[in-house]
This record gives sequence, structure tokens and C-alpha cells, in this order.
Amino acid sequence: MASTAVGKSVTRVDAVAKVTGQAKYTGDFMFRDMLVGKVLRSPYAHAIVKNIDVSQARALPGVEGVLTYKDVPRNKFPTAGHPYSLDPAHGDKADRTILTDKARFVGDAIAAVIARDELTAAEALKLIKVEYEVLEPLLTPEAAMREGAPLIHEDCPGNILSASGYAIGDVDEAFKEADYIFEDELETSIVQHCQLENHISCAYVDSDGRIVIITSTQIPHIVRRIVGQALGIPWGRIRVIKPYVGGGFGSKQDVCTEPLAAAMTLAVGGRPVKLELSREECMIATRTRHAFKFKIKTGVSRDGRLIGMHIKAISNTGAYASHGHSIAMAGGSKFRILYPMKALKYEPFTVYTNLPVAGAMRGYGSPQITFAVESHLDNIASKLNIDPIEFRLKNLVKEGYVDPLNGNAVRSCGIRECIARGKELIKWDEKKARYKNQTGSRRRGLGMACFSYGSGTYPVGLEIGGARIVLNQDGSVQLQVGATEIGQGSDTVFAQMVAEVLGIPVDMVHVLSTQDTDISPFDTGAYASRQTYITGMAVARAAAEVKEKILDFAWGMTDIPAHALDIKDANIVYKHSGEVVMPLAEVALHTYYDTVFAKPITSDTSNNARVNAFVFGVTFAEVEVDLKTGRIEVLEIYNVHDSGRIINRQLAAAQVHGGVGMGIGYALSEQLLFDEKTGQPLNNNLLDYKLPTIMDIPAIGVDFVETFEPTSPFGCKALGEPPIIPVAPAIRNAVFDATGVAFDRLPMNPQRVFEKFKEAGLI
Amino acid sequence: MASTAVGKSVTRVDAVAKVTGQAKYTGDFMFRDMLVGKVLRSPYAHAIVKNIDVSQARALPGVEGVLTYKDVPRNKFPTAGHPYSLDPAHGDKADRTILTDKARFVGDAIAAVIARDELTAAEALKLIKVEYEVLEPLLTPEAAMREGAPLIHEDCPGNILSASGYAIGDVDEAFKEADYIFEDELETSIVQHCQLENHISCAYVDSDGRIVIITSTQIPHIVRRIVGQALGIPWGRIRVIKPYVGGGFGSKQDVCTEPLAAAMTLAVGGRPVKLELSREECMIATRTRHAFKFKIKTGVSRDGRLIGMHIKAISNTGAYASHGHSIAMAGGSKFRILYPMKALKYEPFTVYTNLPVAGAMRGYGSPQITFAVESHLDNIASKLNIDPIEFRLKNLVKEGYVDPLNGNAVRSCGIRECIARGKELIKWDEKKARYKNQTGSRRRGLGMACFSYGSGTYPVGLEIGGARIVLNQDGSVQLQVGATEIGQGSDTVFAQMVAEVLGIPVDMVHVLSTQDTDISPFDTGAYASRQTYITGMAVARAAAEVKEKILDFAWGMTDIPAHALDIKDANIVYKHSGEVVMPLAEVALHTYYDTVFAKPITSDTSNNARVNAFVFGVTFAEVEVDLKTGRIEVLEIYNVHDSGRIINRQLAAAQVHGGVGMGIGYALSEQLLFDEKTGQPLNNNLLDYKLPTIMDIPAIGVDFVETFEPTSPFGCKALGEPPIIPVAPAIRNAVFDATGVAFDRLPMNPQRVFEKFKEAGLI
Repeated sequence: MASTAVGKSVTRVDAVAKVTGQAKYTGDFMFRDMLVGKVLRSPYAHAIVKNIDVSQARALPGVEGVLTYKDVPRNKFPTAGHPYSLDPAHGDKADRTILTDKARFVGDAIAAVIARDELTAAEALKLIKVEYEVLEPLLTPEAAMREGAPLIHEDCPGNILSASGYAIGDVDEAFKEADYIFEDELETSIVQHCQLENHISCAYVDSDGRIVIITSTQIPHIVRRIVGQALGIPWGRIRVIKPYVGGGFGSKQDVCTEPLAAAMTLAVGGRPVKLELSREECMIATRTRHAFKFKIKTGVSRDGRLIGMHIKAISNTGAYASHGHSIAMAGGSKFRILYPMKALKYEPFTVYTNLPVAGAMRGYGSPQITFAVESHLDNIASKLNIDPIEFRLKNLVKEGYVDPLNGNAVRSCGIRECIARGKELIKWDEKKARYKNQTGSRRRGLGMACFSYGSGTYPVGLEIGGARIVLNQDGSVQLQVGATEIGQGSDTVFAQMVAEVLGIPVDMVHVLSTQDTDISPFDTGAYASRQTYITGMAVARAAAEVKEKILDFAWGMTDIPAHALDIKDANIVYKHSGEVVMPLAEVALHTYYDTVFAKPITSDTSNNARVNAFVFGVTFAEVEVDLKTGRIEVLEIYNVHDSGRIINRQLAAAQVHGGVGMGIGYALSEQLLFDEKTGQPLNNNLLDYKLPTIMDIPAIGVDFVETFEPTSPFGCKALGEPPIIPVAPAIRNAVFDATGVAFDRLPMNPQRVFEKFKEAGLI
Repeated sequence: MASTAVGKSVTRVDAVAKVTGQAKYTGDFMFRDMLVGKVLRSPYAHAIVKNIDVSQARALPGVEGVLTYKDVPRNKFPTAGHPYSLDPAHGDKADRTILTDKARFVGDAIAAVIARDELTAAEALKLIKVEYEVLEPLLTPEAAMREGAPLIHEDCPGNILSASGYAIGDVDEAFKEADYIFEDELETSIVQHCQLENHISCAYVDSDGRIVIITSTQIPHIVRRIVGQALGIPWGRIRVIKPYVGGGFGSKQDVCTEPLAAAMTLAVGGRPVKLELSREECMIATRTRHAFKFKIKTGVSRDGRLIGMHIKAISNTGAYASHGHSIAMAGGSKFRILYPMKALKYEPFTVYTNLPVAGAMRGYGSPQITFAVESHLDNIASKLNIDPIEFRLKNLVKEGYVDPLNGNAVRSCGIRECIARGKELIKWDEKKARYKNQTGSRRRGLGMACFSYGSGTYPVGLEIGGARIVLNQDGSVQLQVGATEIGQGSDTVFAQMVAEVLGIPVDMVHVLSTQDTDISPFDTGAYASRQTYITGMAVARAAAEVKEKILDFAWGMTDIPAHALDIKDANIVYKHSGEVVMPLAEVALHTYYDTVFAKPITSDTSNNARVNAFVFGVTFAEVEVDLKTGRIEVLEIYNVHDSGRIINRQLAAAQVHGGVGMGIGYALSEQLLFDEKTGQPLNNNLLDYKLPTIMDIPAIGVDFVETFEPTSPFGCKALGEPPIIPVAPAIRNAVFDATGVAFDRLPMNPQRVFEKFKEAGLI
């Protein structure tokens, strides 16, 4: 297929809007008489509200409303941004209420104030008197799982949200066959998304009594449903509008502010209320990444083949379920395709603690398990004295493999080529040789790590994508999708797809970059790296339907059969020769104005995808470690991805840049810290939380191995989340290579490096 | 059909939004850095711009741009709100440019200023120096048609825009057969719409270079096309948004401000510019109603049958064509079905003059010709000494009649029942007897007049309606239409139609009350009383498609065949028994979330209507005339309409109230006046222009004769414009009845009454 638009580095369709400030974000919406909402948060990690006195707050001039758990519906609702399930057993845990009478973490929402301005609201918060009965805070999974520990949620014995896992083959039998057994324990920390735009929503009641919520979300259609569940009202009485969004990374694949914002406007007669969280609130009161502890035991044959693996995992989900056990399950499922082995047993526990709520975050469990497994594999390779790449190549999946548990098949697989490319880019062999016998206090090392991931959630989740296309009189089109542009570039990619199918230039595709649940086609939103693949199918089908209607109309106008026609450069052409028959605009004009046959062409298409596509990739990293100071510097880093065909290389590279940067932070510096006794957050701000800056990020090398995925109309697969997944283990393995110190915990920040180096006698 | 929603007096869907002020009109849109546009208007009715010096205006601080005809595209474009025609011969006259170098009426747009605020803009206008060569103003059709008169438009010889008419049979032959011949000359005046909200639009350039125009219009999709023609750019590069609109009456079925607003934003780098006309500007620089002069000659048989009629008409279209000759033709065509006769010849001339531009206004030519014909018929009845009602009844059309020229058929006709009802309401016979021999200076009289009209414009115009319906998870729906709610209540009626077809309560239909050409279904807009009938067909089809999809989905869920199912009160029921099978919401939920069959239900339907339906009706009026003062008081007035089945009686009555009020103004007080030498407007403001107030309007009686129109899915026909049509002649005939004075001109204002009464010796 000679491509005209797909595969080109088209400029983002929202580039100008964003650099000129024309793009309107939730905070840019201003309404007459708009009120400000603020939340009173628990200072205790675990406490029962014995009494609340809001009388002084209510009396403060300028305060329009004060809410406690007594004033809002007490329906329990789930918050995870998953499609609703008709099967109650498959639904997300409903453990949240809009406001609570039991604080489960420092920052839990106890009460709320609605006032005429920010200062009055802040003042009123101080006037609310709460009497707490303080309970023992359970700040680690171990503490929470301890026999006799208090229950964080009354209906959850042992504070274990779920312990379901899976097994392929019999791992104990496999271990018997193995020549070697290796065991490791590895651990990751709590980090936060730190997306540019904080959580914000604005709600009001429309004149027909419906609640309208403008919100910075990845999942407008899911927000609608969950607000309906929280308030106990029909979902059609809620309208959710998603304007431009300044990033999410999964933290906006959850319903954090919207139910409370809706309750606030209902409390003040429908006046608009804006609920904007500060950065400090965002970092503890939205979502975090689950910290995991892994125990891995692996059997290996003499010739370096993986025979069996047993992974035990404990996932710390914090005070409420949110995405809960899905994270542990998704990570455990998406990784396993990479190294098919005879037996694999995965035993994850997801445990409630009195810490901020963990939820979806870029990679959704995969960065955690990939850190563990890919570090573990390097440990084994080192012990077996095999080159870590050779070790992996012996075990990597091949095209045609079918996951024995969910039936997803590997129909395209470029992982070997990715490794070869990365090896070349970083000059692996040459540097390996050069760094063989380093002395001195600054030592260099090379590391790499692989990953596998999916494109969307099938068959676990429903994968509906929707697109509507309208053909204008001049042959240009509008495209509406229900999937959300949140900075990742999906709207641009969709425009390219439509242009490709319709044979028109990309600038003739006008994308509506915002969603409105009243009119946008249904789509569950931006998550699971699903959009280019899943929503792309709906976009392709809608465009194909429009093309078919155009050619059919042209047939009527010309008597040339539709199957002999095509569209090229916005002209109707003979398919066999490319000779121009007439401009597309002429057909378009007739679809509007032919007195007999006029019927403007649109397509309103929904696609229920029943497939998934595995993606693969690798990070290669070179580090220099200063043994005296413990400083780890990433000198070079390369990500090479098999994401199928790349629709827009520039945007794809940008995704990789972002993911690698995030991965470097995950590897070396980021961690949300809490007082070990009280659970008080210690660094929930961007000064103390060590997000890497541009000074910490080397030039990032990006490359793609373009396979063609047959289940995708354009051959493409997922790319959004993957870039972060293999970064931390690659850096960890490079440090291991440089120093011989096998780090087992993230982040490898100065304090931990110091401890480990001291332990290893390097300092 | 047992109706559940259609036929009920449902409260307007926008009632609360409008009374609470939540409804957002164009003037409510505020943008950062918004500029204000203002227009320099010609003080001369006919003049050539020899020179313009804008240097001082440009130098004024706060002025961002000054435009003359040299700075804007000079493309000639039409302004009439008609669908574009593929046949150039059928297109509207393109005689307008955005700014002109030849003033053709007092108020013509010579230059424009864009400034940071209103005052600066007004100041800048004063600094523009224009040197004019003043030409002879042609202020009457007679002056314009005079041999050797200067040409208002160089390409239009004799200043006659068009003189096409029609003939049925041979009128001269018919006159030979007639027993009597009667002749009359009658005349109407220029009036103005005076809708509540002045003309206003706001334009800016979007980040992808497209022009966005928010505008108070009846015809957003047509505005898009005409702005494209005016600027000479592809129509898809323009986006038109229609918010809530405060009335139009046809003056917003024309493109008055939008091309200039677009040119203004282009002149200031795409910054938002608001162009809001004052009432004084609106009254002369938007559109007016065409003044007509008629000469009618009619042949009648001894037994009171109309044998033939010859109507000559001169229509004064003012300085530019706008809807031009369409008005004369439409009036002449829609009236003729009422009294089928052997021969009818219609010879209209539409003539340019140096007066404000006449365009579409409620009734579109029909109030004028109906005034003439219905007055003429009463003159004849009086001369023949026949009761005017009896005279009409002898000649009125019957069901089954087919218009010999356009093939439109009378498939429903309640005119006789309308007359009977009106006669009864006003107590015609009783009062006629009572007022037979009045003496004294205050005399009462009864009059009536009939009309016929169409529903839409078929076969003259294209009649496309569009509707999109989206089914929500709770069984409620959103409805989007391309047709525009401008105060007439169409959105409410559409909601009722959807509720009726789908078997759900009206409050489960959420109507999107504003249009956006990027996403709203294509529909040409609000005019020709077309919406309930034409757009209603699209709404019915879309709803039927949604229902079919729902029942089909329910079939899949239940194994009960779709044809055995129905929807009632938002439940799926057995059609034969009404027994509830399951809630509609359950089916709706499965359309979203069934893991295999999910496919959210929508319909995006376009309907190209190839039918028309005649509507009929009558006004009965009782007046008291004070012979001493010339005061005419309307004591009682009744409109009875055959508009087919009435969808919402309360809203229908409101339409009639508005139309009758407007008709009373047209009859008794309204007229735009101009200096006879210079063409300067004399009363272009709401103080001097005598719009009737509540003090001038009696209690208005409304009734409907509900026929069932078979071409309409709900049996309905047009009602929007008709109520005004027969009002003025009914009042005129009542005055004739009371005084014996046969008024031949509108309005019958004090000055004219005085003259006529003096002439008749009454004063």
C-alpha cells in the first residue's frame, strides 16, 4: 500500500492551538457566579469521624455550602476507569463514597466547602471542627495482612482485596526438571504521575435539571457512568465535557473529583462550582503507582532455557481499591508472553493499606514486574556467566505463539530485531569489550531489558471504539471520536488515518479535539495504549464507509462502477490508471444539493474489537557510576520498539522520549515518602519529590522495528505506555554491569546507592 | 394511533434556560482580547465613492484595523438563505460585495473599523473621510423603471431584477366567459421584522486556520456556504455556530453580518471580533419586507364563481436582490391553490430601488398578495351583494386538487371547517344582523380573510432535513438537528416526536438546542414554515431507526422476534398485550457493554423530502371604528388554522398569538418611512416605528381544525408563518364592513384613515 498520510511525520493537529494558548483547558472555563469548592482532608491515616461541627464554617460570609458525609449520597461506587461490566463478578470494587466518616489515609475527603472564592473556602475549611477516633495506621502490606490487624474496609477480611492469580503448567514439576534454580526478591516504590495539569473539574446543573461536568479526564464516558452510580441517578442525566487536557498518565483514568464536584453543584442550587486540586493534593489524593514486592524463583536448564518460574507478588493498593488487583493481574499477564516457558505460576496479593490510593499509571503493573523479572534474568545470566542478551535470545517468544490462558496470539513480533538494532546503536560489543576490566572510581556499564505488552485490554475488558465522520461540501471532513486526546497525539494519528483511507490531504481532516458525552461517539477513553489500535479500527471503518458512499455516489453521477474508482489527492480517479474523473468536491457538492439524490454523507461507526496485539521492545542503557559519590549518570539510552507500523514517527518518538524520561525518574530518583509511624506524606510537592529535570535526561535514542500487525487496519500496535516499561531494569542492569552490585529496589537514589555500595565494600 | 407525546402541550424544552438566563446568546460569548467591529454607512441613497481616506482612523490609538472595499475580497455573492443550487440558472442573484465602492441605499456598508472597544470604534468611524459623487436616488419602482433611469446595478437593465411569472389557462378567454369583471389596485408598505435580538455575529480564526463564526442566524449551514463564496475559500474551512437565538422572522434567513465579521477577524490576525448592529442599523441595513403594488382584474360568473384572474405586481426589492424575485413568486404560487379557477395569470416585476434591502419575512410574499386578493374579493362580494363567506365557499379548493403548475396536491384540507369554526367563534351571523343598520360615529364591522400556504419549498427548493439520535445507557436519548430553534418551539416539537416514536417520556429526550456546522446534521434551517413537517420527517426516520435497532437488539437478548415487541413507557413490551418484557434501560445497557454484541445505538439520518403539504386558515376580526377620530380598534380576532395534526397545542397557539399581533401591526400601524427626496430613513427606531404594543392587541382567539396530512409521519403541516397572512385583510374587510370605505393600502394608520374618511365624506 503506497501510503499518503499514514507513516508521515505530520505536525500535531493541536500544535498551534497549544502553543498559542487557544486550546481551552478546564481551568479556562469561566462562568458567571462560579463558586469554588475545597476539600477538608483527614490529618490521620486511619481514624473514625466521631463528630463534625460545621456551624462556624457555614456562618462565614461568602460560604454557600458545607458538606459532610451526612449531606451527600452514601452510595458506594468504584472509581476505576474501566468499562462497566454486565457481570457483577467482573466489576470493580465499589468501596468509595463521595465523603467519608472513616478516614483511611492522610488526605481522605472528610468534608467540603463551597464558597464565593478560594480564600473564603480555605478560611471556612479551618472553621470545621472534627473529632476523630484515631485508629492504628496500617502503612505496609505486611502490617495490613498481620493476623488481627484492624480492617480498613469492614467487608474485606485480612485487608486483602484479592489474591487471584494464574498458573501455566506445574511449576513444581518444572523446577524438578531444571538444572539450576535461582531466587530473588525485588521491590518497587510508590511514585506519582505528576502530569502537567492538576485534577480539576467544574460542575453545574443545566436548565433541564441535568448535571454538566467539565473535567480534565481521560475517560469522559466512564466519568458519566460513575457519577451516575455515586449519585444514584440515571446516567443520561449527566453530561461530561472533556476540553483539552494537560496530561494524565493514568491518574485521569480514574474518577477522582467529579462525583464531589457534582454533589457540590447540587448543594448550591445548580450554580457552577469549580473543584481544582493543588499539586500537593494531587500527589496524595488522586492516585499513585502501586508499590510491589516480588519473590521470584526460576528454574533454568543447563543450556540456558527457562523451564519454570514462580512469582509471588504483593501489591500495595493503598486505602481504596481503585484499579486494585487489575494492576497486579495486568502486569502479570502482559509480561508472560515474552518468555514462553513450560510452567509459570503467578501469585499476586493486592492489599489495602492506610496510604494514598494506588491506581492506573503508565504501564499498569508492567514497569513493576518487568523491573523484577528483567533484573532477575540479569542476575541469573551473571551467575551462569552467560551474556544477558544471549540468555534472552534463547528464550524469547516467536511469531505464532498463542497465550495459553487468554488465547491472544503473537501475529507480529520484532523483538529480536529490536535487540539487534539496540545493540548496534549503543555499540554493545565494542563497549562491553572496552569496559571489561575497569578500575578506578568511575565505572561504566551496559544494561538492557525487554518487555512485552498488549494493545488494549481484550479479552479482559470490552474494547469499543467509536468514530463519526461528516463529509463537507468541499470534500473536507470532520472527525469526531469518543477516545480522548490528552497530549499523546491521538487526534493527529486519527486524522492521518482518515486522510489515508479517503485519499485526501491531512489538512482536509478537521478533528474535534474535545469530547462531550451527549454527542461524541461512545469510546471508553485513553488508557491501555489502546487508541491507535482500537479506536483506529473504528476510525478506519468509518472512513471506509464514507469512501464507499462517496464512490457509490460518484457511480450514480458518472456510470463508472464504484469498484473501478478510487480517491486520490481529493480527486475521484480511475483505479486502474489514476486518471482524474472529477474533483471529490464535485461529488461532495452533489451529495448536498442534488435535488433527487442529495443525502449528505456521514458515518457514525462503533467497533467492538475482539482482538489484541502484542508489542515488544527493549531499552539499552549505558551508565557511568561514581563509586565515591554514588552518583549514577545515564550516558546513553536507546529504546527500540516493535509497535507494528508507525503512523507518525515524530509523535511516536515523542511518546518514547516521555516514557524514557519517566523511566529514568522511576529508576533513579522518584519516590513518594511517608512518615513510617503516622503515614503523613513527606514530599508531596514538586520540590521535594525528585522528578527528573532536563539536566538528568541524556539525549534519548529512539528507533522502531516496523512489523505489520494483521489485526490492525494500518498494521499498527500500541505505543503509549510501553516506553517506560523496560527503562528502570535496563539502567539497573547497567549499574550491575558497571559495579557488580545487584540492586533489588527502586529507586536507586543516592541514599540507597550509598547503602548498597557500603554493603558491597565499594565505599 | 394512541399518542403518548405528540399532541400534548408539553412545556418548552428551553423554557427554564430562557427564563433563568442560562441560555447563551451570541452576545453572551466573551473572548479574551475580543475586538469590536463597526460599519461606516453611506449617508446617500445612491452615490459613488470617489475617494476614501482612512489614515486618521487608522492612527487612532486602539484601532486595530480599518477596511474599505479595497481591503476585502471583491467576490460577488448572494445573501438569500436558500440551499445552494447545482443549476446556476436557479441560483440567487450574486450582487453583493462585503464592502462597496458604490452606495445603493442610505446605510450601505462603505468601510469598517475594528477597535478595542465600542467608543474607539465609533470615534474612528468619524475620522474616515469619504468623497462621494452623488447620483440620483431611485426611491420608487416607478422611478427605477423609468426610461433612462440610472442603473443601480450595472448588469441589470431597467433595474428590473426579474419579471418571470406564470399563467394557468388563457385569462383573456376566461374574461370573455365571465359575467362580471372587477378591477382593483392595492398596495402594501415596507415593514421591518423587529425581532427581539438584533443581528450580531462574532468571528475568529481557529488554531488550524479555519474561520469560526458564532452568529444569531436561522441558517447556519447556509451561512457557512455564503461566507465561503464571499471570501472565495473552501466551505469546509468555515465553521458556523448558532447559539440560542432571540427571533428572526426571516431577517436571519439571510446573510447580513457574517461575511464582514469574517473579513474583520482576518484583518486582525484572527483575533475575535464582535459585530453587533444597533436597532437603528438593523432596521435599515439588514432586511425589510417587500412593498408590493398590485393590479387585479377578475372575471366572475353570475352565480359567484371565479372564472379568471389577472394579477400584475410590482415588488420593491430595494438596493440588493437578497431573496428578490423569490418573494413575488412564492406569494403568487402559494396563494393560488386556495381558489382554483380556469385561468390565472400572474405578472410580477421585482425592481431594484435605492432603499434598504427587502428580503424574507414571515409569510414570504403571501401577506402582501393575500391582502390584495382577499380585499379584492370583499370588494367584489360587496358589489355583487353576496355574503363574503358565501362567495368564498363557492370557490374554495377541495381535497384532491393538484396544482397544475408544480404538481403539489391537496391531500388534507380543512378550510371549510376553519371558516365554520371562526364564524361561530365570532358569532358572525348574530353580529352581522345586529350591526346591519348602524348610525352614530362609532361603528362596528366584521371581516374575514382566508389563506393558503405551503409546508416548505418543494419543488422549488431542496428540502433536506437531518437528525442524529444517540441512545444512552439509561434509555434516554440525545437529539441533534440541523434545523434551528429560534424561539418558535421546534426543539420541543422534535422532542415530542422522538418520545412518541420511541415510547419514552419527553423528559428522556435531551435536545441539543444549538447548531454547529462541524457536527450538526445538515439541514438548511428555519424558514418556509418547514421544520415540523420537513425536519420532522428526518426526526421520525431517525427515531424509527433507533427503535428498530433497539427491538432488534432486544430480539437477540430475549428470542422474542422484534416484530412482536414494542416500546411503551420506556419498557420493552409485547406488542399484542403490552406485558412488560424488560426495561428499555436494560437493553440500552447491553448495547454498550455486551462483550460480544455491544454496539451503542445511534442514527444519523438525512431526509430529502420530495413532497409538500398545503395549509389553510382564516382570520375573523371585529372592529370598532370611530368616525370622528379615525381610530380603528380591533375588538375581537380569531385565527383558525388547518395545520394538520397539532403536535403541541400550547406552542401552536403561541405561534398564532405572535402572528396575529404582527398582522395587527401590519394592518394598522407599521411602516418604515423614508424622505421622498433623499431616501433618508425617518423612523428606524422602536420609538417612531409604530410596532403594536400590548395595549393595541386584544385577546386573541385561536383554534385548530386538525386534519391529518398523509405525507407527514405525524399528520402535521406548517404553522410558523401562516398566522400573520390573513390578519391584515380580515381587519381591512371589517373596516370596510363597518364604514363602507374600501381601503386599498396598508397600513390603515391614522393619517391614511383620515384621508380616506375625508375622501368618503365621513369626516
